[in-house]
Amino acid sequence: MRGLVPWDVDRRLQSFLEEDLGFDDITTQGLGELSLNLVQAEIVAKSEGVMAGGPLVSRVFSLLDPETVTQVVVPDGETFKPGQIVLKVKGRARAILMGERVALNLLQRLCGIATKTKELVKLVEDLPVKIADTRKTSPGLRIFEKYAVRCGGGVNHRLGLYDCALIKDNHIAIFGSVQKAIEQIRSAIPFTAKIVVECADLDQVVQALQGRADIIMLDNMSLSQIRQAVKIGKNKAIIEASGGIGPHNIRPIAEQGVDIISTGYITHQAIWLDLSLSVK
Amino acid sequence: MRGLVPWDVDRRLQSFLEEDLGFDDITTQGLGELSLNLVQAEIVAKSEGVMAGGPLVSRVFSLLDPETVTQVVVPDGETFKPGQIVLKVKGRARAILMGERVALNLLQRLCGIATKTKELVKLVEDLPVKIADTRKTSPGLRIFEKYAVRCGGGVNHRLGLYDCALIKDNHIAIFGSVQKAIEQIRSAIPFTAKIVVECADLDQVVQALQGRADIIMLDNMSLSQIRQAVKIGKNKAIIEASGGIGPHNIRPIAEQGVDIISTGYITHQAIWLDLSLSVK
Amino acid sequence: MRGLVPWDVDRRLQSFLEEDLGFDDITTQGLGELSLNLVQAEIVAKSEGVMAGGPLVSRVFSLLDPETVTQVVVPDGETFKPGQIVLKVKGRARAILMGERVALNLLQRLCGIATKTKELVKLVEDLPVKIADTRKTSPGLRIFEKYAVRCGGGVNHRLGLYDCALIKDNHIAIFGSVQKAIEQIRSAIPFTAKIVVECADLDQVVQALQGRADIIMLDNMSLSQIRQAVKIGKNKAIIEASGGIGPHNIRPIAEQGVDIISTGYITHQAIWLDLSLSVK
Amino acid sequence: MRGLVPWDVDRRLQSFLEEDLGFDDITTQGLGELSLNLVQAEIVAKSEGVMAGGPLVSRVFSLLDPETVTQVVVPDGETFKPGQIVLKVKGRARAILMGERVALNLLQRLCGIATKTKELVKLVEDLPVKIADTRKTSPGLRIFEKYAVRCGGGVNHRLGLYDCALIKDNHIAIFGSVQKAIEQIRSAIPFTAKIVVECADLDQVVQALQGRADIIMLDNMSLSQIRQAVKIGKNKAIIEASGGIGPHNIRPIAEQGVDIISTGYITHQAIWLDLSLSVK
Amino acid sequence: MRGLVPWDVDRRLQSFLEEDLGFDDITTQGLGELSLNLVQAEIVAKSEGVMAGGPLVSRVFSLLDPETVTQVVVPDGETFKPGQIVLKVKGRARAILMGERVALNLLQRLCGIATKTKELVKLVEDLPVKIADTRKTSPGLRIFEKYAVRCGGGVNHRLGLYDCALIKDNHIAIFGSVQKAIEQIRSAIPFTAKIVVECADLDQVVQALQGRADIIMLDNMSLSQIRQAVKIGKNKAIIEASGGIGPHNIRPIAEQGVDIISTGYITHQAIWLDLSLSVK
Amino acid sequence: MRGLVPWDVDRRLQSFLEEDLGFDDITTQGLGELSLNLVQAEIVAKSEGVMAGGPLVSRVFSLLDPETVTQVVVPDGETFKPGQIVLKVKGRARAILMGERVALNLLQRLCGIATKTKELVKLVEDLPVKIADTRKTSPGLRIFEKYAVRCGGGVNHRLGLYDCALIKDNHIAIFGSVQKAIEQIRSAIPFTAKIVVECADLDQVVQALQGRADIIMLDNMSLSQIRQAVKIGKNKAIIEASGGIGPHNIRPIAEQGVDIISTGYITHQAIWLDLSLSVK
Repeated sequence: MRGLVPWDVDRRLQSFLEEDLGFDDITTQGLGELSLNLVQAEIVAKSEGVMAGGPLVSRVFSLLDPETVTQVVVPDGETFKPGQIVLKVKGRARAILMGERVALNLLQRLCGIATKTKELVKLVEDLPVKIADTRKTSPGLRIFEKYAVRCGGGVNHRLGLYDCALIKDNHIAIFGSVQKAIEQIRSAIPFTAKIVVECADLDQVVQALQGRADIIMLDNMSLSQIRQAVKIGKNKAIIEASGGIGPHNIRPIAEQGVDIISTGYITHQAIWLDLSLSVK
Repeated sequence: MRGLVPWDVDRRLQSFLEEDLGFDDITTQGLGELSLNLVQAEIVAKSEGVMAGGPLVSRVFSLLDPETVTQVVVPDGETFKPGQIVLKVKGRARAILMGERVALNLLQRLCGIATKTKELVKLVEDLPVKIADTRKTSPGLRIFEKYAVRCGGGVNHRLGLYDCALIKDNHIAIFGSVQKAIEQIRSAIPFTAKIVVECADLDQVVQALQGRADIIMLDNMSLSQIRQAVKIGKNKAIIEASGGIGPHNIRPIAEQGVDIISTGYITHQAIWLDLSLSVK
Repeated sequence: MRGLVPWDVDRRLQSFLEEDLGFDDITTQGLGELSLNLVQAEIVAKSEGVMAGGPLVSRVFSLLDPETVTQVVVPDGETFKPGQIVLKVKGRARAILMGERVALNLLQRLCGIATKTKELVKLVEDLPVKIADTRKTSPGLRIFEKYAVRCGGGVNHRLGLYDCALIKDNHIAIFGSVQKAIEQIRSAIPFTAKIVVECADLDQVVQALQGRADIIMLDNMSLSQIRQAVKIGKNKAIIEASGGIGPHNIRPIAEQGVDIISTGYITHQAIWLDLSLSVK
Repeated sequence: MRGLVPWDVDRRLQSFLEEDLGFDDITTQGLGELSLNLVQAEIVAKSEGVMAGGPLVSRVFSLLDPETVTQVVVPDGETFKPGQIVLKVKGRARAILMGERVALNLLQRLCGIATKTKELVKLVEDLPVKIADTRKTSPGLRIFEKYAVRCGGGVNHRLGLYDCALIKDNHIAIFGSVQKAIEQIRSAIPFTAKIVVECADLDQVVQALQGRADIIMLDNMSLSQIRQAVKIGKNKAIIEASGGIGPHNIRPIAEQGVDIISTGYITHQAIWLDLSLSVK
Repeated sequence: MRGLVPWDVDRRLQSFLEEDLGFDDITTQGLGELSLNLVQAEIVAKSEGVMAGGPLVSRVFSLLDPETVTQVVVPDGETFKPGQIVLKVKGRARAILMGERVALNLLQRLCGIATKTKELVKLVEDLPVKIADTRKTSPGLRIFEKYAVRCGGGVNHRLGLYDCALIKDNHIAIFGSVQKAIEQIRSAIPFTAKIVVECADLDQVVQALQGRADIIMLDNMSLSQIRQAVKIGKNKAIIEASGGIGPHNIRPIAEQGVDIISTGYITHQAIWLDLSLSVK
Repeated sequence: MRGLVPWDVDRRLQSFLEEDLGFDDITTQGLGELSLNLVQAEIVAKSEGVMAGGPLVSRVFSLLDPETVTQVVVPDGETFKPGQIVLKVKGRARAILMGERVALNLLQRLCGIATKTKELVKLVEDLPVKIADTRKTSPGLRIFEKYAVRCGGGVNHRLGLYDCALIKDNHIAIFGSVQKAIEQIRSAIPFTAKIVVECADLDQVVQALQGRADIIMLDNMSLSQIRQAVKIGKNKAIIEASGGIGPHNIRPIAEQGVDIISTGYITHQAIWLDLSLSVK
């Protein structure tokens, strides 16, 4: 799980378990000693997709009972077919019955995102462009959803408002010009942070380059504008296309030579993949 | 916001803001004193849907600056059309720029769920049946997503593993019979908790009724099985149909006379509704 | 410890230890290396009672030093006599000296409750009635005190305000009638939650049954009223007697045929049982 | 509320409310808009006792709704008679219905302790002795229960293991002598902390005085031993009697001239006082 | 307080107050009602320095009592002379006595850092170079100490390990070459994050530039090496000098034309400035 | 680590790691599988000093990876010379790279304090006086800094406002006289807490002794005043000198016969000791 700190992951998973468990799973409580029986279970895919979150499922069951043993059959980032077993788990009934729903809720969401990401990645895989996510992630699940994007072959945009500055039309309006905005913001933030300028037209692209922006984000531009912007900015800054990009328009945009295509499509249009757990 | 405790809501919203903000929004930090300018913004719908989460958006901005004033134009539970303003906010640029993404991420997800719920509710609105959710909710967002289901005209199934017992095939297998399972579990849990029995066939329905289950969940049954089950169980227990139910099959199932139809469709198939915030 | 989630228990016990320890136990700090000496200790009963909390005592010492070994001599739910050793512990002096008070404070309170519960349970053990607790529990200790009630042979009423609806005179007054109150509240809450109606007279019992309440709580009724209510409601709802019930009046009430007798007596009249720890 | 930090109190009260409320009070949720009705309520005593916790009750209701207005009729530390109104509250039904049980659970416990404390205080009020509590308090409630002891006219012993060293037989055994124990422990702890020595006989009293202990705790001594110890130690150290002290033996012990009598009786033998809230 | 999120600040300040207060300030508790007296106090400088933390002092007192009124006399970033009043506060004795030490501990540390920073800034103020901090900050106080650096006229280096990649000798050794290291790390991290390469010699500078590093950190280089590195890298990357830089050697290093000088001197060599609070 | 509770230490260290790590160390993330390589590292002193915090460094690395093995070469409280290895660590590169800065930040600060403390302790080591700290500690680090004082041979003054009462001029002014202040405060606080009186002149010393204060703090007194105070108070109370004491004036003050010299010098004048970690 590159990019995830183990204890941070555990604490988040535990809060998800608490949300579902409250003081206790009363049905399992009703099993009494029988809840300590050893059982085996499998998570099976019912549709095609990209795996994302296997180690998280493993941690969910381990948190409920450290003696649970999980075998990830399909590693994160690999594809699976309908009917394929993606993960096996063996342990006390108690842990498996109590963790099933939380494990699946997370896994289904993450596989949905990885699968959507891979869908776009494949459409442009012969081109030197990368697919990036946005901050359009489910509240509380950002690190997991950004991890799923990486599993699907995408790259990450900024993690939040704290690790990269992004100058938008409102900021430009406040300062009066693109260059003024870049200059003022650069002087106030850590010099180690990149500055992205969201440009609505080529004029702003030129100004942003003059201001030495690190990343030029082309917002909802036409293909010809994008082509022009790439011509002007290539190798001077990272050129990123953004705004309403999905499978219907990604290919021509990528062909204009941008470095990055960022899109909320891979998160906000992702539905849950159909995966289910069955106790043997 | 019926069913949401104000301080619990605030604490959750604050954690969502922290996820996005980290130590600070560095772009806004770069605005300096200008970030205190008063601005007005509107959230506009770009597609048709059902509102859910307006008061949460209001709290997001208030948490960032108590002097922000929000006007909910479309109340939760009502429908909106593309182009309609659903909410207006007025306050310091700082609060609005910092809270925009968190507010929208939550609102878009919740409106997506309310809209999917309403889609099903409408298909059976002339019948005496209610549409209920499941525990298939985004980890960490259950109380919000269950609220959205209510906004869409649905009702809530159990909140978690703690407030209702649900006996499944695994439990029945462990105890040897439906009645044994009901009896044992009933004796161990609070007598104030209902017991649901997930039944795979009519024989189990009969046993569950004999065991005085409160709710009979008909799992993936055929229409004729459902009809039989309703005949046997009506007024003896709540009859709930469940398993792979969506717009394609909800109407005939409802017509068999079940009291409740529960389905994960309204949460795991919900994509985010298209809503955006524009600063005036 | 049925009905207690291990990590939730540990977190609560740790907060109790922190309350007592602050930054450190300065007396033990003064022992220096000598605090690492191995010692053995026993918890001995000085009066008769019912055990409740042995595994909690074990966790208290393990949290302070994972190498401490505890042997529960009298299992939870069993009775002990004055002078009997109920639990033995072996480990570093540090852990035992630091944990003693917290362990005993919890154990003495829980045994007190289990013993009071058993006192009532025994008075009616030949009758088909169960003794239930209430929400009259020490703030912060509810899950432990409800566990102690189960150790004493009682059953649990609702855990809190969230897992069962209880309609009282105030609610009825607000809605104007028992049936209106039931109907309105039922439509707003999860359909998986039971509804209890607290009835002051037989008329309300009749209305509550018509409204299909799940549980009829007979509040401070006379024996003849209770007998009537049982006659009317038996097998239509769970009949619960409540209000000022203790050893002096429980037997005749039980003899009227109610299903449940709930009483705060077993918690708010429970004093701590006399148990002490001695280091060998 | 002398000796209680407001935000610490609020955080604790909030956790007590959360324990009872979970995600929400579903009955109140069922009231819908009617839960916003203004109501008045009174807390009435059903037995005689000493008030402790009025301002806490006020905070409970304010936390649920800042517009609730509470009027404490009987101030903490004063006595009330059966039938007397001790507190009035006016506010939205929602806040009062949701907070009632938590408020009463705390108030009844604290009044119980204050009343038990006053019982002992009165028995020796003509003598120059003070009644002190112990660390035998309900886990998680120490600051509140020690506050109740002060309301009852008692004084507080150490708050926990961190603010005063207490040398017992086990410590003496480890070091070999009383003086060695005092010397070693004194050298390791903050010089601002007092040292109490629990003495089993007069020989230990002499040694503890030679070691310049701050407080001599006479553990389960006979009246003549206590008299001797007072003679030897008066004005050289604080003389504290302890061990199984209650109403049956407090008077003669106090008459021997000790400065302090500490006893768990006032907490572990305290039952809840009978107080109830009625909505007008 | 640019770059500090209000609620994050409050939560941290509250934890500092809790560290000092525990359950309560017992001396203030002893004042009883007299602790509510209104008093005025001033914080006076006893040595020359740069102000940093005035608004934090204000928050400390407000957290203890919202009615406390603080007047910051010397704004953050400005200098003060010995004997000068830097801040006035008026409020209940309770809040001022309880908050004094925490307020001063923080203020003295932050003024110490701002003053050390200004010392270096002034030595090179005619040159186009900026003074930056490092991650050598007191554990738990980073956001405050980085804020103090800004008050002293410095700029911030990365906030932590999460917002900028820094490739050191160990990383280079692991990958075999500077370029390989840059390439691999770039492909794994958000494309919005800058990459710093710590270079030990000019050869590494050349490689880092070829790898398109964003920042070239010259680690403990000689003046002539620095001059060469600036010649090669100027305008291709940000050139940062680092390693053992203080007042004795900063001027000649700055004169070589580097963009940034980062140094732990301004934090780890900062002693507390002498400031004291006196109640009038 | 006498005087530190293991879990409290771990929780604090973890929060320090979180401050530095955020969601993840992105440079280490870029290493991929190579970050799991085993490496060895040493912490080497670059100046002379007293060790304090070795076991904390060990915990930092263990928290990041439980399989990391740390060998403390120089135990806490012992001195080291420039060039000496004080600690060795062996483990996965990931843990060592991620923990290095937090470990050193803490260790350098604590060694700085222990070294300053030892500096004063040595100046008076032939005299029967002890060097004590104050509450002038870095916010959030008190227990660690007070531990470092003990490592340097000092003793601890009160931990906070909760474990000892300290009567200052403001309190005396409020009550009107030293004796009145002592009497009132004593009656309100736990009888187990000592009372310190800060005296500005001999008259106050006399009054404080009459009031039976436990500790007489001589505040900024002249040598002759101190000598007089010792004459009057010796063996009646602990005599403590305080106020602006450092290496320049500690010897003559100690020679007047005081029991304790308390000074902020050992914390607020401590700079970080020069220690660095090198990976082999």
